[in-house]
Amino acid sequence: MSGNTLGTLFRVTNFGESHGPAIGAVVDGCPPGLEVSEADIQHELDRRRPGTSRHVTQRREPDRVEILSGVYQGRTTGTPIALLIRNTDARSKDYSNIEDTFRPGHADYTYWHKYGERDPRGGGRSSARLTAPTVAAGAIAKKWLHQTFGTQIRGYMSQLGPIAIPFVAWDHVGNNPFYAPNADIVPELEAYMDQLRKDGDSIGARLEVVAENLPAGWGQPIYDRLDACVAHALMGLNAVKGVSMGAGFDCVSQRGSEHGDEITPEGFQSNHAGGVLGGISTGQPLTASVAIKPTSSIRIERRSVNRAGEPVQVQTLGRHDPCVGIRATPIIEALVALVLMDHALMHRAQCG
Amino acid sequence: MSGNTLGTLFRVTNFGESHGPAIGAVVDGCPPGLEVSEADIQHELDRRRPGTSRHVTQRREPDRVEILSGVYQGRTTGTPIALLIRNTDARSKDYSNIEDTFRPGHADYTYWHKYGERDPRGGGRSSARLTAPTVAAGAIAKKWLHQTFGTQIRGYMSQLGPIAIPFVAWDHVGNNPFYAPNADIVPELEAYMDQLRKDGDSIGARLEVVAENLPAGWGQPIYDRLDACVAHALMGLNAVKGVSMGAGFDCVSQRGSEHGDEITPEGFQSNHAGGVLGGISTGQPLTASVAIKPTSSIRIERRSVNRAGEPVQVQTLGRHDPCVGIRATPIIEALVALVLMDHALMHRAQCG
Amino acid sequence: MSGNTLGTLFRVTNFGESHGPAIGAVVDGCPPGLEVSEADIQHELDRRRPGTSRHVTQRREPDRVEILSGVYQGRTTGTPIALLIRNTDARSKDYSNIEDTFRPGHADYTYWHKYGERDPRGGGRSSARLTAPTVAAGAIAKKWLHQTFGTQIRGYMSQLGPIAIPFVAWDHVGNNPFYAPNADIVPELEAYMDQLRKDGDSIGARLEVVAENLPAGWGQPIYDRLDACVAHALMGLNAVKGVSMGAGFDCVSQRGSEHGDEITPEGFQSNHAGGVLGGISTGQPLTASVAIKPTSSIRIERRSVNRAGEPVQVQTLGRHDPCVGIRATPIIEALVALVLMDHALMHRAQCG
Amino acid sequence: MSGNTLGTLFRVTNFGESHGPAIGAVVDGCPPGLEVSEADIQHELDRRRPGTSRHVTQRREPDRVEILSGVYQGRTTGTPIALLIRNTDARSKDYSNIEDTFRPGHADYTYWHKYGERDPRGGGRSSARLTAPTVAAGAIAKKWLHQTFGTQIRGYMSQLGPIAIPFVAWDHVGNNPFYAPNADIVPELEAYMDQLRKDGDSIGARLEVVAENLPAGWGQPIYDRLDACVAHALMGLNAVKGVSMGAGFDCVSQRGSEHGDEITPEGFQSNHAGGVLGGISTGQPLTASVAIKPTSSIRIERRSVNRAGEPVQVQTLGRHDPCVGIRATPIIEALVALVLMDHALMHRAQCG
Repeated sequence: MSGNTLGTLFRVTNFGESHGPAIGAVVDGCPPGLEVSEADIQHELDRRRPGTSRHVTQRREPDRVEILSGVYQGRTTGTPIALLIRNTDARSKDYSNIEDTFRPGHADYTYWHKYGERDPRGGGRSSARLTAPTVAAGAIAKKWLHQTFGTQIRGYMSQLGPIAIPFVAWDHVGNNPFYAPNADIVPELEAYMDQLRKDGDSIGARLEVVAENLPAGWGQPIYDRLDACVAHALMGLNAVKGVSMGAGFDCVSQRGSEHGDEITPEGFQSNHAGGVLGGISTGQPLTASVAIKPTSSIRIERRSVNRAGEPVQVQTLGRHDPCVGIRATPIIEALVALVLMDHALMHRAQCG
Repeated sequence: MSGNTLGTLFRVTNFGESHGPAIGAVVDGCPPGLEVSEADIQHELDRRRPGTSRHVTQRREPDRVEILSGVYQGRTTGTPIALLIRNTDARSKDYSNIEDTFRPGHADYTYWHKYGERDPRGGGRSSARLTAPTVAAGAIAKKWLHQTFGTQIRGYMSQLGPIAIPFVAWDHVGNNPFYAPNADIVPELEAYMDQLRKDGDSIGARLEVVAENLPAGWGQPIYDRLDACVAHALMGLNAVKGVSMGAGFDCVSQRGSEHGDEITPEGFQSNHAGGVLGGISTGQPLTASVAIKPTSSIRIERRSVNRAGEPVQVQTLGRHDPCVGIRATPIIEALVALVLMDHALMHRAQCG
Repeated sequence: MSGNTLGTLFRVTNFGESHGPAIGAVVDGCPPGLEVSEADIQHELDRRRPGTSRHVTQRREPDRVEILSGVYQGRTTGTPIALLIRNTDARSKDYSNIEDTFRPGHADYTYWHKYGERDPRGGGRSSARLTAPTVAAGAIAKKWLHQTFGTQIRGYMSQLGPIAIPFVAWDHVGNNPFYAPNADIVPELEAYMDQLRKDGDSIGARLEVVAENLPAGWGQPIYDRLDACVAHALMGLNAVKGVSMGAGFDCVSQRGSEHGDEITPEGFQSNHAGGVLGGISTGQPLTASVAIKPTSSIRIERRSVNRAGEPVQVQTLGRHDPCVGIRATPIIEALVALVLMDHALMHRAQCG
Repeated sequence: MSGNTLGTLFRVTNFGESHGPAIGAVVDGCPPGLEVSEADIQHELDRRRPGTSRHVTQRREPDRVEILSGVYQGRTTGTPIALLIRNTDARSKDYSNIEDTFRPGHADYTYWHKYGERDPRGGGRSSARLTAPTVAAGAIAKKWLHQTFGTQIRGYMSQLGPIAIPFVAWDHVGNNPFYAPNADIVPELEAYMDQLRKDGDSIGARLEVVAENLPAGWGQPIYDRLDACVAHALMGLNAVKGVSMGAGFDCVSQRGSEHGDEITPEGFQSNHAGGVLGGISTGQPLTASVAIKPTSSIRIERRSVNRAGEPVQVQTLGRHDPCVGIRATPIIEALVALVLMDHALMHRAQCG
């Protein structure tokens, strides 16, 4: 297994390079009879698309998806769904200066050491562009989960660099380029980003994702717990350095009498567990957080080495996201959807 | 897949219940020719064993491991290594009062909803006792990694509830029951735990794990990144609510010019990445943190429901760890060892 | 993956060596709530057991199974079912002369070349004794399939060396040591075997297996077809050199107008397909055949080499089956049961 | 897992329908640094292509492959290789009469029962056209095996319906449309096929495949034996009803003193084993046979039912192969190559 497939029963195999002919995914194991159109998938891709505000990369990619298989007369047939996205705006010349050097904090270095070969154009395989097929596949999972269980999966940004973003309301999220659940704070975020771009630097972010309306009982102990698989998927996203569930790292200083969610006939009285106990869903909302590091492609000069091991100064031009967290909300939603759908099918297999 | 197997090439299948006849694991895919003895494994099991200080459960389990297969004349043969640990001190009567009720924050509730059946004795399958087979398997991985690459994997406690534990030196870790890298703070930890036990409550903890001397190049993009697989394994451990790599959640407020680890001909100048870039090891130490929640089995009465959905007050007696983090250090070392060995073999398969 | 696990959702992990402390299996993914006892499993093990007639190995192994986990109060809990069988009659001295030499036609040679290590006692890992855990696991699958779908899986011997065994009736099968569906031919089979033992030679056999009452729709195209997975399981049995479905190799000279099974409102009018079309079950009986080679452990001297590559004469003493096909009927039933159960769960996962 | 992926480390995920927009495969796990071009793959596709003689389907498909990813500057990068083949000659109207009825012996029936949905155009997913992506992926495996070990994998037809085809020489195989290793018999085969087409009927065939120059030691006991995986792959090919290794079903009447291949310092003295003992390669040529049934799409009227269960007469027009075995030789070569490469990588992982 070379790591490019996610899931056991609902399986997504991702392919492509940032500046190659195309990127895409093959989605295997989808139940038959689900209505799926290119428009359904395009809707989610458009949420992740570059070039939609001045705060993200200015690469112009329509990210137009084509369904090559697995859907007949608008419904899934149970066979693999191949999704194709052609790359169109690939200006590889912008990256010629990095072919021989390693950006500090970038996968350039490790791909080179692992494979001895790499496609350096636009970051090649390690580009965040490869999250588009994940989002496309996630659109199918989201739709199936919603139709089957009423499950709704939504994310938002809770912190941009030093700026905490208090949650106000879900309907704010779609109305600003940051996926911030708080309209009032948007001007501050914009000002911060404008200054950051002037500085030629980048910044981290923290995102939250919440899945509501999932039944109790999903998850496979011991190792493939629902939260373990969520952590696997989310930590597998470019630039993520931390994943937590429910109370997350705050649980370290909590006492059991505080952390353990009491239950009454009316239901759970809190959700420190984040919707998972013993690796199995409780029926409460599943809540997770991710920490996203600042992107490594910045204009500020930094020390590095080239392939010969000689010292160089590296400055990355080209079109990069100064905060990859800004476009990551649809991606973490998609990843959670993929994990939940896989576990829904596994649960149905074993427990009927 | 029902979730009880970890790994793709170096595979650990875990079985058993806390108060059943036995627990154990089958380890498949071990390279042939490795010297492995029961003593090697017992050494790691003894580090995790209950009853070794007043701060952990007083259950008396020798956790004596028997190698049933896969080792001939002291060397692995390449065939499955079955490891058996008999349960000896199972006082199931202590748990009779919880058969019908759900402890707040415990997997009782979810196992019941998932399976409709469960072995309630001592937590059954969801007991932290099931980490013993993981530790036993990890002992084999640790030995192979050390012999093959000189890899050393060590963990320690960095926070106990509200008490941060500054790192002083590795050689402190083995000399106190907390795996604290700081002898001076031990009396404070002991006093805290003594009071906690009097209160009948429990507490969370934060642990760190560091793997040194691993080569650059391990890890499988896109989904099965090295850090994603570490996160999967660690979040799959009982009571873990958060996992982070390198700078972890601190990266949220870092700028790219700070976070990206500069490289000189002498090597990396920092390790915010935690030894992984683009999902592939850099050759620097792999560093991870976990947040461990307070155990749910406490003497303090809490509100819950029984299987009929009626309100009950739950108070958990029996022999429980007031801080499961105290015994978790050998377990997270084992989990990291299992992931690293699996990735070492996968890397060798693809890249020779 | 080191090859010792069968199945995707209903997974059997096999361990042990012929003369080590124990053999066994861990069965993961069993649905909860199935009544399973050691007696259920023992019944199938006793059908495969050595020493039950003069025509098979005289090793005296009670093959007593112990359920270590996954069953509570007589019902499966959905957690891994560990099955343990201690080896008791291991006379390793009988095999001392083969430690350094390779029997023609035996796995001695290949294990040595693959691993550089091997447990030579009684064939070690390559012994047909390792089919006992398969049979034990298969007993659980058989029971679940029968209770859930009324599926019945039965095998018989259709040829012993040169002697074809015409099918007469199922109820003959259990009344002779050959699993022959034909009581009249048994004296001829016994006489043949008696002479064979005098000759110190061994012989091949052909077996059939029939699974009735399985629904249409099981199987996963393209690669994991139901028949492909049956072929994988059956060819994975020691000594099997050929597997066929339905008409098998006879289809080579059939025309489409003869081979294609016509359908009327009353159902299929023939079963050349063997119950599988396009890799998916038709609802007709699944029928498969296997060719089992003569065992390689014979008294007749043969030419071979030792580990140093020098010529030797090999003569195998010890207690061996002169026709491993005689005890193989319960094993092929078990293997088909394991495949069917796995596919039943996969079908339920995807198609509800 | 929905069955459309073959392999553990060298993994091929197949997608597409006969008359959809495209078919293809994603090949994951290929070692980096292998020179691969579209021409390399096209060469194998052209061997399988329809319309190359009057004895096969007259559908005109150029089967032009496009490499979408995983190859940079002519060399593999270790990332997924996506292969795309557009469908161009899809005359779906030819098949309109079969949308509602089931052809005897065809997967129509089972796809309908499994999924409740199906793409009926040209057989949809169950079409033999879906072997093209397998052949494309196999071309990569063939090249790597040849470059790394000198392995050569070749197949031929050994029987066409009632006509046995004695092996004369490998160099005959490429010079006739049947892949017959015997030029003299070709006129007889052509006459037979010409009559068959006039009859509107179809016929079965038997093929052989031989892999030379593979090292001893490949294969994973117990369940994932090399021969078991070959059987899985070959039985997973459309229309295959039987698979055998080495002596195959002839072993049933062989004695051990005949079947067991003697070894001398000069090597094995025969190859009844077909290159595999105990599931592990011996270093001799791997030899396998497959039985291919007559295709179910024939002009002769046959009894069947429609989706309402009512009796119908079915006659299949359109462009079909009267003997799918004729084009199957490159496919079985590809399947064996895929299995061998996967096992080569697994062996390298475990045994270094």
